Amino acid sequence: MSDAFVRMSLDEARDFARAVLARHGLKAPHVDAVAETMVAGERDGCASHGLYRLLVCVHTLKAGKVVPDAEPSMADAAAALVRVDAKGGYAQAAFELGLPRLVSRARRLGIAAMAINNCVHFSALWPEIEAVTAHGLVALAFTPSHAWVAPAGGIKPLFGTNPIAFGWPRPGEHPFVFDFATTAVARGEIELHRRAGKSIPEGWGIDAEGNATTDAEAALAGAMLTFGGHKGSALSAMVELLAGPLIGDMTSAESLAHDDGAKASPFGGELVIGIDPAGFLGAAAAEHMQRAEALFDGMTGQGARLPSQRRFEARARSLVEGVQIPRALYEDLERLLDA
Amino acid sequence: MSDAFVRMSLDEARDFARAVLARHGLKAPHVDAVAETMVAGERDGCASHGLYRLLVCVHTLKAGKVVPDAEPSMADAAAALVRVDAKGGYAQAAFELGLPRLVSRARRLGIAAMAINNCVHFSALWPEIEAVTAHGLVALAFTPSHAWVAPAGGIKPLFGTNPIAFGWPRPGEHPFVFDFATTAVARGEIELHRRAGKSIPEGWGIDAEGNATTDAEAALAGAMLTFGGHKGSALSAMVELLAGPLIGDMTSAESLAHDDGAKASPFGGELVIGIDPAGFLGAAAAEHMQRAEALFDGMTGQGARLPSQRRFEARARSLVEGVQIPRALYEDLERLLDA
Repeated sequence: MSDAFVRMSLDEARDFARAVLARHGLKAPHVDAVAETMVAGERDGCASHGLYRLLVCVHTLKAGKVVPDAEPSMADAAAALVRVDAKGGYAQAAFELGLPRLVSRARRLGIAAMAINNCVHFSALWPEIEAVTAHGLVALAFTPSHAWVAPAGGIKPLFGTNPIAFGWPRPGEHPFVFDFATTAVARGEIELHRRAGKSIPEGWGIDAEGNATTDAEAALAGAMLTFGGHKGSALSAMVELLAGPLIGDMTSAESLAHDDGAKASPFGGELVIGIDPAGFLGAAAAEHMQRAEALFDGMTGQGARLPSQRRFEARARSLVEGVQIPRALYEDLERLLDA
Repeated sequence: MSDAFVRMSLDEARDFARAVLARHGLKAPHVDAVAETMVAGERDGCASHGLYRLLVCVHTLKAGKVVPDAEPSMADAAAALVRVDAKGGYAQAAFELGLPRLVSRARRLGIAAMAINNCVHFSALWPEIEAVTAHGLVALAFTPSHAWVAPAGGIKPLFGTNPIAFGWPRPGEHPFVFDFATTAVARGEIELHRRAGKSIPEGWGIDAEGNATTDAEAALAGAMLTFGGHKGSALSAMVELLAGPLIGDMTSAESLAHDDGAKASPFGGELVIGIDPAGFLGAAAAEHMQRAEALFDGMTGQGARLPSQRRFEARARSLVEGVQIPRALYEDLERLLDA
């Protein structure tokens, strides 16, 4: 192995993440739940959602923008709805609390939705999507973030990066999963261009006056753009509504105002929908799930990749070989143990 | 008025559409339901979903690809799910049959979904989205079509144009509604370029060998592309799954095979989800809906258009002035009364 990387087993990565989080005051069960999410990102080759996020979490903890010992609780809602109050803590523990009820309601009624309120959100949505599909349910998830993104035809940040995630359970296979920001590109990608002094392609952002720009710094000070023009913008607005006012929680603009310059992770809500294929189809569901397999074969058979294919390939490698962390990042993270 | 157009009141347009449909064997209640949908399209300035669709419907009727006197029926499903069998008829009457149950289940349980099976689908989804939001519910709708679209990274048609539609009820205002194909552009747009002998921009389609093309004819013989690259492609796959295997109905590839060269409207299913804002929030829902209004103000206040704004403006005009049909189209449609 090159000296530029530090290799760790997944157990070592998990212990390391737990130690950093605990050192900065995060309490059980959040330590385990948050560490697990980061290890999953690192394992799946999503470096930006891997151990790197320890820097983000420690910053958020230090800024006092997350409740380190929050005890999430279930709140009242209609029969097919589950509502969990994260009480200002990270979303993971709240999700784990609500998941069994989401699954049982979806199985009983055919479809159910879970709102997580008052949570701090730093992770991708696919770990939660996979947790729902593991129960044989179809899953959708949405969450706003901070207002960094201009609506199509607009000039000022209003929407968040507002990911949409979807999962479909596959018998004997990894689920069909996608999870993407409704922006043209991740904010971190523009940040990387800025650090490297490189210009960005048109279509990623606009400057503070609302003009198209290829200057990364100007775009970060202005607004990011959605993917797919007015269609991506419409989807981004939908995420604001579904995981904001519909569940009584913050829009991205409100989250950024709440942040008040601390540059902490977004604060607000998340909506997860679960649908039981047996709810419509009963015993015939299995046969129709096979027709979904024909669709996937139709994609891969012509050279198209399934959305999470690379991620699952990285997972298979990491389970055998562990993960490799850039040494510079590892050293930054190690310093967090003393900081 | 220019001689190039024929002006009709909405009542005249409705009577005209009914007469054409009845002349070609469509039976009640389909005649009224289908005519109403076309008049709504014409009224809202969506000419491609207006009276022009009479040509498409008559073709589908003549090809024997729709059951003109289908009697839709409600089928068993889980408590939060509604399943309507359209019995090979147009989707409209089946939707009207199922809507009251979708609304009552969503109100009682918080969220509910309706599958329409075995239907012929020629219309936009926004008329149905508006019908759901009129009951104060948030709405989502999906339907596959015919396999004309290649997945990202692929070379052959597999997906349909696969629209996604969303609606959000607004007190005292038209709802927030979007409804768009997951393709880069409507198929009809490529068709118009072909007729005019104009080249198409890159990104709309690929030829039969899977190569990028700016030749409209080559793209129609090859495959259309999704909007937004792999993100639009992932959404298109989601529409196939949600409104195909999940509800026990056809994918776009299966619909095209069923069509067997008849060039009739797509055949298969549709999924509609309704969510009651009061389900999560109870009496506090009204206050949180006001926060959604702040989001809309944040869009329009910076010059961004709400997704259906132009359509609602056209509606306001048409309610006063009626609609204008290009004379050449009108004459084609009139001939259908004798054909």
